[in-house]
Amino acid sequence: MRILLEVAYDGTDYHGWQFQENADTIEGELNRAISALIKKETEVIGASRTDAGVHGLCNLAVFDSDMDIPADKYAYALNTMLPPDIRIRRSVKVADDFHPRRMKVTKTYRYTIDCEEFPNPLKTRYAHFTYGKIDVDLMSQAAIYLIGEHDFTSFCSTATTAVSAVRTIYDIGVTRQNEDIFITVTGNGFLYNMVRIIAGTLMEVGRGRIAPKEVKDILEAKDRTKAGPTAEACGLALLKIDWEGDLKIDG
Amino acid sequence: MRILLEVAYDGTDYHGWQFQENADTIEGELNRAISALIKKETEVIGASRTDAGVHGLCNLAVFDSDMDIPADKYAYALNTMLPPDIRIRRSVKVADDFHPRRMKVTKTYRYTIDCEEFPNPLKTRYAHFTYGKIDVDLMSQAAIYLIGEHDFTSFCSTATTAVSAVRTIYDIGVTRQNEDIFITVTGNGFLYNMVRIIAGTLMEVGRGRIAPKEVKDILEAKDRTKAGPTAEACGLALLKIDWEGDLKIDG
Repeated sequence: MRILLEVAYDGTDYHGWQFQENADTIEGELNRAISALIKKETEVIGASRTDAGVHGLCNLAVFDSDMDIPADKYAYALNTMLPPDIRIRRSVKVADDFHPRRMKVTKTYRYTIDCEEFPNPLKTRYAHFTYGKIDVDLMSQAAIYLIGEHDFTSFCSTATTAVSAVRTIYDIGVTRQNEDIFITVTGNGFLYNMVRIIAGTLMEVGRGRIAPKEVKDILEAKDRTKAGPTAEACGLALLKIDWEGDLKIDG
Repeated sequence: MRILLEVAYDGTDYHGWQFQENADTIEGELNRAISALIKKETEVIGASRTDAGVHGLCNLAVFDSDMDIPADKYAYALNTMLPPDIRIRRSVKVADDFHPRRMKVTKTYRYTIDCEEFPNPLKTRYAHFTYGKIDVDLMSQAAIYLIGEHDFTSFCSTATTAVSAVRTIYDIGVTRQNEDIFITVTGNGFLYNMVRIIAGTLMEVGRGRIAPKEVKDILEAKDRTKAGPTAEACGLALLKIDWEGDLKIDG
């Protein structure tokens, strides 16, 4: 039977999701734990290949198992075998052809900026620290231009291998809670470094270096050099993946 | 001149504040960085010797310097020389006889409990995770009995070296924000493991294993075995130290 895992992880100490022969990866840790548990060499299929240092609160991974274990118990069993910075939050039975990258999904990422006067070491792992004032209202005004279906070439690493740069952003919110600023982006998929380049550009807007309406020009230029810098990985977390269709839950 | 540092740190990877010859400590890192900066073998005097794994948002440390550097610049200079999990939040000039352990101070600690359904790896370093339901109202009712001047022998590790176990707790608040429970304790000083034993006992109350009014009996028993377990270090953070008297700020 095919098991779907909801996986949360602190990406700080990993070279990203995707398996690499000589580096610690989330996928590598999952493959190791699952193979040991079900006593069969296994490779998971993941939904989002998050970058080195990026965190996940609900990435998805599937694998097939012949073991006679109720689906919901895989979460408990695997959590005893995984390092504490990777946790399975849920395990459910899904259809045998369920493939997390061949579904119509909606992904939500959050980028966190720490605006305290001095860096707070309890936030270093999960937030980008920045000195100086950032205007959240300007960032919100700029973000509106990114909503909708666009060619996001300006907001994509030139190292991309994607054939098309057209993606749809359903919503971007910029909110402030005390000394934290959150940029929350929901879309049907994201290009390589896209959320981090959006965050880096919106921070430039918040600092007054780019006017909100210039973001429209940057988007239309389809030129990576026009946008702001790629914001550092630590501030980024994959919050949620929603998908269409039935999910058959075992038991 | 005597310089006072406000120090924040993620205690996860340290064997506590207090210097140890063969282990990483906050004090050891500070001594190393300051000695290198002012080119003189220096040992700081700290305010609170937090335990291994406990975090600090504003611990205090003083040292004497002959260097011709404005007091507020020490924070910036030392932050370039310290590991990222230790940050100086402020540096100010104080009177030459200022001693952070010989002042009348008020300390505030916060204990964080993660009550999500499954452990959240982005909280593992800074919160104690617990399965099952915890009733915050019961915890609040119990906490009231601890407010005031009491002999806290029941809430002190038997490994203590303190002569008297009498301390004053000015306030304890138990609050819930989404899936986090915060126990915030303010007092004139705390015994060895005192906040962690208070947290461990209040969690037993929240689970219904100890009735709120029994906490009064536990206090009066002056017997460590009557209280709950010592809650794990990661959930604890020193939030604030307030003191009476003038603080001469340079410039």
